[in-house]
Amino acid sequence: MNFQVTILGSNSAKPAHGRFMSSQLVNFNEKLFLIDCAEGTQFRFQDFKIKFLKISHVLISHLHGDHIFGLPGVLLTMSLNNRSEDLHICGPFGIQDFIETVLRLSQSHLSFNIIYKETNPSIVNNIYVDNNFTIISFPLKHRIPTQGYFFREKYSEKKLNKIKIDQYEIPYQFFDRIKKGEDWTNSQGEKISNAELTFENPNPRSYAYCSDTEYDEGILNYIQGVDLLYHEATFMHELSNQALKTGHSTAIQAANIAKLAKVKKLLIGHFSSRYSNLKPLLEEAKSVFINTELAVDGCTHIV
Amino acid sequence: MNFQVTILGSNSAKPAHGRFMSSQLVNFNEKLFLIDCAEGTQFRFQDFKIKFLKISHVLISHLHGDHIFGLPGVLLTMSLNNRSEDLHICGPFGIQDFIETVLRLSQSHLSFNIIYKETNPSIVNNIYVDNNFTIISFPLKHRIPTQGYFFREKYSEKKLNKIKIDQYEIPYQFFDRIKKGEDWTNSQGEKISNAELTFENPNPRSYAYCSDTEYDEGILNYIQGVDLLYHEATFMHELSNQALKTGHSTAIQAANIAKLAKVKKLLIGHFSSRYSNLKPLLEEAKSVFINTELAVDGCTHIV
Repeated sequence: MNFQVTILGSNSAKPAHGRFMSSQLVNFNEKLFLIDCAEGTQFRFQDFKIKFLKISHVLISHLHGDHIFGLPGVLLTMSLNNRSEDLHICGPFGIQDFIETVLRLSQSHLSFNIIYKETNPSIVNNIYVDNNFTIISFPLKHRIPTQGYFFREKYSEKKLNKIKIDQYEIPYQFFDRIKKGEDWTNSQGEKISNAELTFENPNPRSYAYCSDTEYDEGILNYIQGVDLLYHEATFMHELSNQALKTGHSTAIQAANIAKLAKVKKLLIGHFSSRYSNLKPLLEEAKSVFINTELAVDGCTHIV
Repeated sequence: MNFQVTILGSNSAKPAHGRFMSSQLVNFNEKLFLIDCAEGTQFRFQDFKIKFLKISHVLISHLHGDHIFGLPGVLLTMSLNNRSEDLHICGPFGIQDFIETVLRLSQSHLSFNIIYKETNPSIVNNIYVDNNFTIISFPLKHRIPTQGYFFREKYSEKKLNKIKIDQYEIPYQFFDRIKKGEDWTNSQGEKISNAELTFENPNPRSYAYCSDTEYDEGILNYIQGVDLLYHEATFMHELSNQALKTGHSTAIQAANIAKLAKVKKLLIGHFSSRYSNLKPLLEEAKSVFINTELAVDGCTHIV
């Protein structure tokens, strides 16, 4: 099953150096989740050919402008494109008031319903569950109530052992059941164990989004061993005082979290506009946690 | 004195074909006025190297999203750039509630004061006056309360006749007074008439912004003889029913208004996203009013 993250904006606060502000798209098995929605997100849908009408959920981390000011425009454009499916919008208390006030004052009428889920970011919230995966939110430490999101596959399907499948001449209609763990009984009543027909499934994959947040080891409880961690790294470490003052992290701090949580890969983003060249941030993070990459607008990461 | 209009966005409703939505900048004698502020306006400031901190007034035509959703982001970015001067925001009733609610819910604190002027768009309002020019708003006919803006130079200074100025050896300190119409008395008490020292001033220049509006000859009272008229032309005339239904104009209708008002130049904009090629709209308008141009993002027009 497909599980990937596309960066739509990697800058903080204001656009700079060709970087838009916070927004990204998680595609899990062709189900699309938009995380944060800064001004210009709908332009990024065009730039990167995103099938934005397929987005089922918008997940907002917090109500700062550089994470939500693109949402009204996205809603209007979905409506202009005659969306009819419900859209779920999840975020800290206040998100519904924000959307409804903006729509009311701009006398905008949408072609679809919005289903709100307002949360208290200081606790863990169950956000979404289906047969394949779950999403929870968890507390981040920022200037205003803020939550991260954790996507976790429920299980991975087993992989078929093609040689055995061919040997027992199993029809393809049964592949899905075998992938899910069933044994196979052939026309002579002979039972072939699932273990013989499949390879063990890998660990369930997971993705965590942590932005905006100051350095906070409290999040280790939620993101331990995650496959891909997006952690904000607004500043170089020489500005750690500035980071603390504004509720943000440095590249070193993001890498420390990745190291302590034993994540597989770290993706840093939410860069300050003062940095046109991001290499020093990457190098700083890599000095602590080698498997680090820069978030780049338009790039997709496989979880 | 400089008097020019720069198009920041020429599309209606949503971004398309590289065109942003309604926003433009009027520069009169280095005083900057932003008319409308769709999502992405702050990106256009960067694209076209606009000195946006110098904007003193934001003039909003109406509260539809494609005319105001960029304003919160512009305010935040002005604040991040440490603006300290007051910013004047003028628009129909509701604009203050929109800005204040968005700033409150996003917990945004600006580095400068906003001075609001909320208007009743169904009447003429005095918006701005200084020694050099005036701005009024006037009613447009749209689905929601909407107003156009009319910029008019108070007078043009006379031009100096340099040959005469040299002949009478007039010191440059007196040039401004002579441009304003004073006679000159030399050290022997001899009086030289202003008419001898100057050329007549041209007519005061003027600019009118009409968007969004359906075809409405009522606006002729306000825009008669204007040097440059920006009039929306959302549709081709074959969609005139659609135009009427949505409170918009066709290219032919915009040109008719220009012709009846005997304007010098017509600029059409606010194009429907259905048109990737705008030439047919231009040709349609030119068939009625020859001196028509297309609004193009990034282009500047001298009034």
